[in-house]
This record gives sequence, structure tokens and C-alpha cells, in this order.
Amino acid sequence: MKIAIAQFNPTIGDLTGNAQKILELAHQASKNQAQLLLTPELSLCGYPPRDYLFRSSFIDAMSKQLMALAQQFPPELTGLVGLATANSQAKEKGEKPLHNTIAVIQNGEILYYFHKRLLPTYDVFDEARYFQPATVTKGFTLKIEQQENVVPVNVGVTICEDLWNDEAFWGQRNYQQNPLEELVQQGVDLIVNLSASPYRVEKQQLREAMLSHSAKNYALPIIYANQVGANDDLIFDGSSFAVNQTGEIVSRGISFQETLLLAEYSSQQSDLIPTTITPMIDDSNAEIWEALVLGVQDYARKCGFQQIVIGLSGGIDSSLVAAIARSALGANNVLGVLMPSPYSSPSSLADAEALVHNLGISSTTLSIEPAMNAYDEILSLLFAGTEFGVAEENLQSRIRGNLLMAIANKFNYLLLSTGNKSEMAVGYCTLYGDMNGGLAVISDVPKTRVYSLCRWLNQNQEIIPENVINKPPSAELKPDQQDQDSLPDYQLLDRILDCLIHQHQAPEEIIAAGFDEKTVNQVTQLVRKAEFKRRQAPPGLKITDRAFGSGWRMPIASKIDY
Amino acid sequence: MKIAIAQFNPTIGDLTGNAQKILELAHQASKNQAQLLLTPELSLCGYPPRDYLFRSSFIDAMSKQLMALAQQFPPELTGLVGLATANSQAKEKGEKPLHNTIAVIQNGEILYYFHKRLLPTYDVFDEARYFQPATVTKGFTLKIEQQENVVPVNVGVTICEDLWNDEAFWGQRNYQQNPLEELVQQGVDLIVNLSASPYRVEKQQLREAMLSHSAKNYALPIIYANQVGANDDLIFDGSSFAVNQTGEIVSRGISFQETLLLAEYSSQQSDLIPTTITPMIDDSNAEIWEALVLGVQDYARKCGFQQIVIGLSGGIDSSLVAAIARSALGANNVLGVLMPSPYSSPSSLADAEALVHNLGISSTTLSIEPAMNAYDEILSLLFAGTEFGVAEENLQSRIRGNLLMAIANKFNYLLLSTGNKSEMAVGYCTLYGDMNGGLAVISDVPKTRVYSLCRWLNQNQEIIPENVINKPPSAELKPDQQDQDSLPDYQLLDRILDCLIHQHQAPEEIIAAGFDEKTVNQVTQLVRKAEFKRRQAPPGLKITDRAFGSGWRMPIASKIDY
Repeated sequence: MKIAIAQFNPTIGDLTGNAQKILELAHQASKNQAQLLLTPELSLCGYPPRDYLFRSSFIDAMSKQLMALAQQFPPELTGLVGLATANSQAKEKGEKPLHNTIAVIQNGEILYYFHKRLLPTYDVFDEARYFQPATVTKGFTLKIEQQENVVPVNVGVTICEDLWNDEAFWGQRNYQQNPLEELVQQGVDLIVNLSASPYRVEKQQLREAMLSHSAKNYALPIIYANQVGANDDLIFDGSSFAVNQTGEIVSRGISFQETLLLAEYSSQQSDLIPTTITPMIDDSNAEIWEALVLGVQDYARKCGFQQIVIGLSGGIDSSLVAAIARSALGANNVLGVLMPSPYSSPSSLADAEALVHNLGISSTTLSIEPAMNAYDEILSLLFAGTEFGVAEENLQSRIRGNLLMAIANKFNYLLLSTGNKSEMAVGYCTLYGDMNGGLAVISDVPKTRVYSLCRWLNQNQEIIPENVINKPPSAELKPDQQDQDSLPDYQLLDRILDCLIHQHQAPEEIIAAGFDEKTVNQVTQLVRKAEFKRRQAPPGLKITDRAFGSGWRMPIASKIDY
Repeated sequence: MKIAIAQFNPTIGDLTGNAQKILELAHQASKNQAQLLLTPELSLCGYPPRDYLFRSSFIDAMSKQLMALAQQFPPELTGLVGLATANSQAKEKGEKPLHNTIAVIQNGEILYYFHKRLLPTYDVFDEARYFQPATVTKGFTLKIEQQENVVPVNVGVTICEDLWNDEAFWGQRNYQQNPLEELVQQGVDLIVNLSASPYRVEKQQLREAMLSHSAKNYALPIIYANQVGANDDLIFDGSSFAVNQTGEIVSRGISFQETLLLAEYSSQQSDLIPTTITPMIDDSNAEIWEALVLGVQDYARKCGFQQIVIGLSGGIDSSLVAAIARSALGANNVLGVLMPSPYSSPSSLADAEALVHNLGISSTTLSIEPAMNAYDEILSLLFAGTEFGVAEENLQSRIRGNLLMAIANKFNYLLLSTGNKSEMAVGYCTLYGDMNGGLAVISDVPKTRVYSLCRWLNQNQEIIPENVINKPPSAELKPDQQDQDSLPDYQLLDRILDCLIHQHQAPEEIIAAGFDEKTVNQVTQLVRKAEFKRRQAPPGLKITDRAFGSGWRMPIASKIDY
């Protein structure tokens, strides 16, 4: 039996468009003699639909769309489609109003509804906000023809997190219930997992290791179908795969692209047998690169932008973002804006121009000096007797931010902001200045990773000018300024930030691990004090397990030393 | 027996400072012969501590702080103190790592820990992200002296949401469990509820109606102790109270201020008996006014600002915010900045000056024309042949935003943004322009409420100049511009917005209710398209049950018609 995985890129809320895509993939699956089509979690509305789920009209529309889809579905194909459904006993029993559901459709009818059991409430996930968890996990029987006999195959249905509780793999329980064990006890032949699992660096290795462990442990094949595409800060990498009962990968789809992946179940062998196995991306830089390109592409497309504008300082961050933008929308659709001030070094302009040349994008150069003079004039009385300081530095950044937004507004371009995660962490960036933009492309990429991405990008030909990579980083907001005048060396900074942000460590723990006390305390204070900036940052593409986005929930007005 | 309620204003994370405040109130309670001191939910760390809870060092520090507090506590006083505690069986049982706990301290020891049962996951609440709910609700026995006898009083302990499931009151179950009924079955004499319940308009009426209903229904007195003070977007009004077994209010504390409220339990009557009953604020405008003043005051204080800067356009929004700022920090600590352009009407300047005079705040006037000319010059080539439009309008707003931020940065002032909820909803505001600020004071106040607040404020003397209230609203970003050229009348707009935002209605439902189709569709589109602006807005003080803050979780890249 062939099983097709519709790894497609939904637009949040676009029920008609998403159903159309599912239908196209269903016909393609039919042509390939597939008997079962799997679609990702909440495939009809896209994941995450967030507070759109509070609209009862939206939930009703989803039900209707499912019915319409069922009626148009190829007759020989059984489909698993994700949607949110109303929990009819919510008010009577004091439960949440919705379920996160997979519907089984066949021959114009809806045969079963399966509800998600384990609802994630960590990081970016808010599923307890909307959904009532199922109390049981079950499956359905698919009748397949095998050499003129009709053979029943029992398919256990799990939704994303439902499989993330393999106690032996994790060394602890993550949830009180274990849907996998229940399905094993029910004697299923095959488990399918319909997911919308966001990307982070090397997440696919973890998924495959985990499901390979579970499959082997229970001698039960598992098919994992994942959403692809980016929705605001979250990038879904797809990377759908199948693992047989000995824990071997027998099918794998491409990452970061829409695809119809075919898996095959042999009822004679009671196991999945090998089909296409696309090689896994074996380099974390390549993986992050593809994630960020998809992130920019989808944000632009789903928000209705055809073109991108970026401020080019000649520095490494804006250079990397410009390269990503070019890959996302094409060189013809990227405008780089060079905005020199009297503090800009001649080499910065030359570096930015070299980048423009390497990328083949268009560019324009706007001197910000007239605006600097105008602000000086306007503020001369009020600022009389004060020294040049952060106010004046920020003004330059904000003039640039205004010019970029004026261009974005005038020509309907998407402005990308270019700050990296290290800067965002310590607040080495200007709110309403260089933080401006619809999307913060590398705000989850630490500075040290920015360097490694650029070196990786240059491995075959120079894309990022070498001087951009080799010169000491500088904001160039005052004469002879360098980042390292205000901040620790980025290698050291990124290690401390990892302890603070990813490991949730207190300063004293980091100091006890051997880091310099003064530096740790300085960085800790900077991170806390920059919270007001991060709160107003554009959505930033998430590539780690702890980004400054929808999964980062910190108070601003606070006092903490622990 | 006297029971003291420590309605105090914690700073998030400040364990030492919060413990010190609790101790001071404990001594005051002792002096008043109280035997029991109640503090709000999570009183040691303040509510909501958000992701600080992920730091195990923070949880450890809380335990130590509790122990230290217990040892310093007056010996004759029993204290109920809120903190987060580790769930020791989390990994073994697959549970969340923490509990939301109330500890009972007495004579230098910690006698009991009670954990919260019903964890809210709606609106601004994320408690399932951190906490494992308790499976039982219990109480403890307090021995009190009554006419030379020692009488036991059984006190049932509930934490905030634990009491928000009175099925008869709500007409439905909100949660599967009902802690109140369990306590009744255990035969408690008195129920205490330790809360951190955020303010919204007329929430106190709801709390009192609900607990009065529960108390009467079960013939059981209830004491409600609430946090006071603002933490970022959330304002806690305090308004602690006690209700006797016939459902009458017998004690009520002041709203929006720290206080030690005394309640009294008579073991002879097995009921609470009357003490201080502060009248409830009986006017929604007065209530909102006090909430917003406290919100500004606490944000400034807890972030370390002594002074405020505001751009004054002569319009009603900035006028109201300036009046709030003056009440929060005093006239000497508010700077109003008038920034006329060639499009500003002379009356706008005059109105702003009249406001400055009425408020007695200082002001400065900065013409933005030199900066407008500078940007025109810089962009002349790039914008050649295009018409004056949104780009140019936004530039004016952004020049003003830059000037305000320059002043804020130079003198360490807190910049307040002045946009109202109706504008924020439809995007009638400029990102990186008039949206600039550390705190959005009235971003949850609809325009129609802005008018009623100003009229209320003027009831005894003119504070907001009458011309500001009476003239048609205008952004003055082009000649003869008025808000109503681009938007429906605010009365109509606010009614449609209420349907969309508060009632979660679809456009077709609103049209079916009798609103003009074209207007409803226009407003719906504007609201959806302004999501990218709201995402980057400063935290806004919440005064309704659906604000654009931590409880508003919407996708940006989306397509929805339902």
C-alpha cells in the first residue's frame, strides 16, 4: 500500500486555498496509486492559527470546508485532514471549547475524528489556550488489496506532540499519558503522526532519533508528516519521513519545500519498505540558510510583498540579510540602500558597493548628513551644553530607519531589519532605527553564527566581500567606534548569552563555571535592560530552541538578580 | 479573630524588596491584633513573573526568601505567602516543573504548602506553561482564643482562579473541578482566596457578585485578597474584600492603592463581621482614570524613570495622556513637546498651549520643518515624479517620533505614546512615529471612551481645553485632513470594533446585525492589515477584557474572511 504525505505550505486562515492545495496533492497521490493521503496537523487552517480560533464562524467554516473537500476527494483515496473542531460538551463539563483534530475522509464522507492528546504549552506553543485534550488515542482500519485478498491494516493516529513522550528515549516522562503505548496495546500495525513541528537547528536529527527509537522499541513502523513553510516567526521545515519497525529510515522528503512524499507499507512484511530517501542536509549552516531564505520568502509572499528594501552599512549583518533576501525573492527584487554619514569609513561604502556588485541587486546611496544637520538645528537650544552621546548616535540610526520606511511606504517594499541575536540580547541596536522592519531575519542568529554562515556562503565564490568578514565590527555612529569598545568579544559574549538565555542560568552559576564576574554581570544587566527594545522588535525568524519571539515572555518592569 | 489583608504592590522578581514589604505589613497587622495575614498570589515574586520562572536559581531563591521571612515574622501571627515551588515528581510523572503555591508560615516555620488547582490559560494568562495543577484543595486549622477558650477555625485555601468556577453563577462549568465544593464538603469555616486578578472596567462588580453568590449559596464566608499595582500592561486594582455567609460585603479595601485591610471573623457567629467598607468607585470613568494613572506611575517607577516626555499635538489623545502623566508623576516631571509643521493649524498650537497652561507642566516647541525639508532633499531623486502620499505623511510623524526619542535618550525621560484603541485597531497611526514610546497609555481605550474620560475630567474645572474636545479630530499630516475622511465616524467604528475584537464576530455576522456592509468590510480589512503595527507597539495598559497586549495573539501573515 502506498501512503502519500502531503508536505505542503498552508497560509494561516486561508481555508479555501489550503483545501485546494490538499485536493491537488490528493489527485497527484491518486495518480501514484496511493491509498492513503496524510496532511499535517491543522492542515485546513495552517499552523498556528492562534486567536483566529476564538471566532466560532471560523470553526464553522472549517467544518464546511472539510465536508466540501471530502466530496471532491478522489474516491479511491482515504485522506487524513487536520482542523479545529468544536467540543460539544465544553460548557457542560467545564472543558476548553475546541479540539485539535484529524478527520478521516473517504468516499465523500467523514469517517472518524481523532483529537490530539498531548498539548504543548512550552516555548511558542499555547495549545491549552484553545484545545481540550483527548482522553484516548485510537486508530482506524484501512482495507487494502494485497494479491487479490483484502487485508486490514490498523493505523494508529497521533498528532504531533502525541509521540513526544517516549520515556526511555528522553530519560524522563514529558507528559502523564503515553499515547504510543496505548496504541501498541491496541495492536495497531502502523502509526501515523501528523505534525506542525517548527524548525530549529538540528531538530530533524532529534525527530529521527526519537521516532527511530520508538519504532524499534515497539517494533512498529511510524510515518511522520510535517508542515512546510514559514508563518511569521515560525519556520516549518517539512522533512517528513518514515521509519520501519527496526528503526531504519525508509522514506524521507526534501526539507524546506513542498513535496508529495510516497511511503509504502507491505502487509506481507507488516512493515514499511524503502522508497525515496532524500539525504538529510548535513551542515548546520546550510540548514539555517535554507530556513532563513524560506522564512523571508513566505513572509513576503503571504503578506503580499514582491520587493524588499534593506539598509546596507557595509557590515556583516546587513550583508548576510541582503544575500538571504536575494535568494528569497531574486536579485531584481532587492534594493540596497547605502546611507553614509560623516562617521562612515570610506571602506564601509566600498564594502557595501562590493556586496551590491556580488549580489547583482540594485542600490541607491543617500547621505544622511542633511537630516543630521536638521535635527541638530531643531534640538540645538534644548541640547545646548550637553555632550554628544547615545541620543545623537541613535538619531543617526533613526534617520536611516526613517529613510528606509519612507522607501518601503512609497514603493510598497518589505523592509527587512538586520540585527543579530547577540545585539538583540544586549540591546546593541536602536529602537525605531536599525530595528525597523517587517521581519527581523537574523534576530535568532548569534553573531558568531553570522560569521560562520558568511564563511559557508563564500565557500565556492565570494558572495560576502572578504573585507566585510575580516574587519572589526562597528556601528560607525561616532568616530573610530568599534563594537568591542562597549561589548565583550563576540565569542565570549555568545557563550555567556547561551548560559543566560538557553540554559536559564543565573549570573552566579555562570561565574561559578569560570566566566569573568564583571563581564557576566555586565551582560546580565544589559540583557535585562534591553527587554523594552525586544518587546517592540519585528517578528524574528526562529532557528533555535529559545528565540526572542512568541516563545519569549519576559517582564519589562522588574528587578531580578537570580 | 482579626484577619489582615496585605494588599501590596510587588515588583516582579524583587524577592528581597517584596519580602520586606510583607514583613512591614505583618508588623502592622500584629499591632492591630491580627492573627492571620493574607498576601496575594505569588506575593514573593509578584504576578506575573513569566519566564523568570524557568530559572531554577530563581525558584531556589524564593524558597530561601520564604524561610527567611518565616523566621522574621511576628511570632503571634500566621502568614499566607505566595510563591512558586518546585514539583519534585515532575520528571517521574511527566508533570510541569512548578506549582503556584501558598505557604502557611507560623512561629518561624513553614506549616503547609497549598497549590493552585485551576490554572487559567485564557487572555493574558499562561499558567499551564509553568505550573502543575494541584489535584486536591484543602485547608488548615487555626486555633484562636475566644473568651479564654481555644477555638479551632478551619480555613480553606484557594488561589485566584480556584474560585472562578461557580456553575450556578456562570450558567456553565468553566473547569472540570470545583475546589469550592470540595472545601464545603470538608466542612471549612471560612475560605480565603489569594489573588492576582488584573483590572478591567467593572471587574470588581463581577468579583463581588460572584463571591457573594458563592458565599450565600454555601453559607460560607469568603475573604478575597488581591494584588495591587501595575506590571507592564497589567494593572491590578487591589479592591480586596470580604463577604459573609449571607453574601453581604462586610469589608472592602481601597482600590488602586496599597493598604492593610482588616477583616474580622467571629467564631461565635461562625461568620465574618463588618469592619471597614471603603465605597466602591461608582463611575467607570473614575475607575479607568485611576487605573491608567497607576499604570503610568508604576511603569515609570519600576523601570527607574523620574520624568516623562509626551508629544502634544493639540489633539484629544495626547491631551488626555498628558493629564494622566501629570497625575502620575506630578506637573514638574512632565515635559510636553509641541512639534508644529506647515500642516498644523494655528488652533492646534493654541490648544496644546492651553493644555500646558491648564496642567502646569513644562513645554518646548520644536518646528519639524527643517527635518521635513532635509528628508525631501535626501529623497528628491528617488521620489521624483511620485505624488505626496502616506510615505510623506508618515515621515512627519516619524520626525516627531525621533525628536521625542532624542529628548528621552538625552535626559532619561520616559516617552509615553498616545494612540487610542480605535486607532491601534485600524492602523490609523504611524509605526516608528506616533507609536513610539515605552508605554502606550491609552491603547486599550476606545476613542469614544477617550471623549467620555475627558468630559468626566472636566466636570469641575477645565483641564482638557474645551476646543480640544469639540473640534473634529485630525492627524494634520496634510492640508485640511480629518480622521473622518479615512475612517467611519468613531461612534460607529467603536461599535464595529467591539463586535470584531471583543465578540469575535465575523464580518458577515456584524453585517447581519444591521451594520453597513461596505463599512464593516473596510474596518475588518484595516484591522487585519494593521496587525504588523500592533506587534511592534509598546506595552499598552489593559482596561478591557480584550486588549492588544499579552492576551492578543494573532498571526500577521494570514488570509481570513470568516
